[in-house]
Amino acid sequence: MNNTTLFPLVLVDVALFSIVEDHLRVLLVQRAQGPEHHRWALPGGILKPEIDANLESTARRVMRSKVSVEIPHLEQVHAFSGPDRDPRGWSVSLLYWALLPYDQVNALVKAKVEKLDWFDAANPSQEMAFDHHAQLAAALQILRNRIQVTSPALPLHLLPEKFTLTELQKTCEAILGRPIDKAAFRRRLKKELPDLMALTGEVQRGSHAPAQLYRARDGFSFNV
Amino acid sequence: MNNTTLFPLVLVDVALFSIVEDHLRVLLVQRAQGPEHHRWALPGGILKPEIDANLESTARRVMRSKVSVEIPHLEQVHAFSGPDRDPRGWSVSLLYWALLPYDQVNALVKAKVEKLDWFDAANPSQEMAFDHHAQLAAALQILRNRIQVTSPALPLHLLPEKFTLTELQKTCEAILGRPIDKAAFRRRLKKELPDLMALTGEVQRGSHAPAQLYRARDGFSFNV
Repeated sequence: MNNTTLFPLVLVDVALFSIVEDHLRVLLVQRAQGPEHHRWALPGGILKPEIDANLESTARRVMRSKVSVEIPHLEQVHAFSGPDRDPRGWSVSLLYWALLPYDQVNALVKAKVEKLDWFDAANPSQEMAFDHHAQLAAALQILRNRIQVTSPALPLHLLPEKFTLTELQKTCEAILGRPIDKAAFRRRLKKELPDLMALTGEVQRGSHAPAQLYRARDGFSFNV
Repeated sequence: MNNTTLFPLVLVDVALFSIVEDHLRVLLVQRAQGPEHHRWALPGGILKPEIDANLESTARRVMRSKVSVEIPHLEQVHAFSGPDRDPRGWSVSLLYWALLPYDQVNALVKAKVEKLDWFDAANPSQEMAFDHHAQLAAALQILRNRIQVTSPALPLHLLPEKFTLTELQKTCEAILGRPIDKAAFRRRLKKELPDLMALTGEVQRGSHAPAQLYRARDGFSFNV
């Protein structure tokens, strides 16, 4: 009888989402050692009770040490548990999700040990380690629900500081994986996004007509 | 250095809600031993990796052994964790919530070891053990959000098999802790509750005019 028969392994996994070329992507690492050597996995690691203040601290420490990223805000998705999900023994993995703008995160992300890459969040097209395929699906579902039902402002966390309403709509479409009607989207913005501020006199110029630039209001919080 | 310095304690706690005399109540147990001896707590217990298939099994086993109740459906609220929340050591407690009709649960509930009682869910008016006051608040918040935003049919799980629309409204009001406008409530029912079935020719007679009786449609599921 090894220790994990009496004491379960406690881990965290993190689904970090970003928008890459108009697609919602998730950061995966290729495992550099066993178990599940070479398979792609959500970045994660084992709780260290002697140094972690809570499971959220574990998640932040893991993301810092494995992919060099400071996560501003984490939310719990679900605890996955059982004797068979990890060959090391009975385990509990607490899944978190996080959002970061790609231009900000990509400069920072560095694989320390494992190889990493960004994959299509809805269809990562890789055989994933452990139960991470189910974990990713659960995180994506909660993200989509949150945007549609309770927190329409969440996509602001994926955009650069200044953005146009078209860019905001494209971000929502990337998360939901389907086109949105523009008129209905603009009406919803007016009603539900008081956190949005037009930048007086600032427009984005490109191939189309100049487009008004916006930013999130100061003190805008993750929780809506 | 004891084992919990290296291996965290993994527990579950369960917020079981019911409607008692038109009020939303939660089942608490008075702890028969330390830690937190004599304090009121959500029923809970320690994961046993050698017999539990997952954390949900732990929750079912604990509710069966501590209060003699079979829980038909459990949902995760949140994982509470840290070195100080339980004097026995670094701990992770996964909080679940569940709903049962009072007439059904009250006949079954029996304290095996600990004393138990039903308390006002929004204001249990007892000093609670561990971080269970915060846990209860989190469970109540998720229940209220679910009913208002995503799952208007949840209150059906708190009602007897046959009920009137007035009883359904009273149950919603008990959960939300505030009165609801009757006309708006009836409009919402029509739109969002296809799981509701009028029982032809069956009415409830009392001091008022006879009221149509309803039941949940066969195959009605907890998840909406």
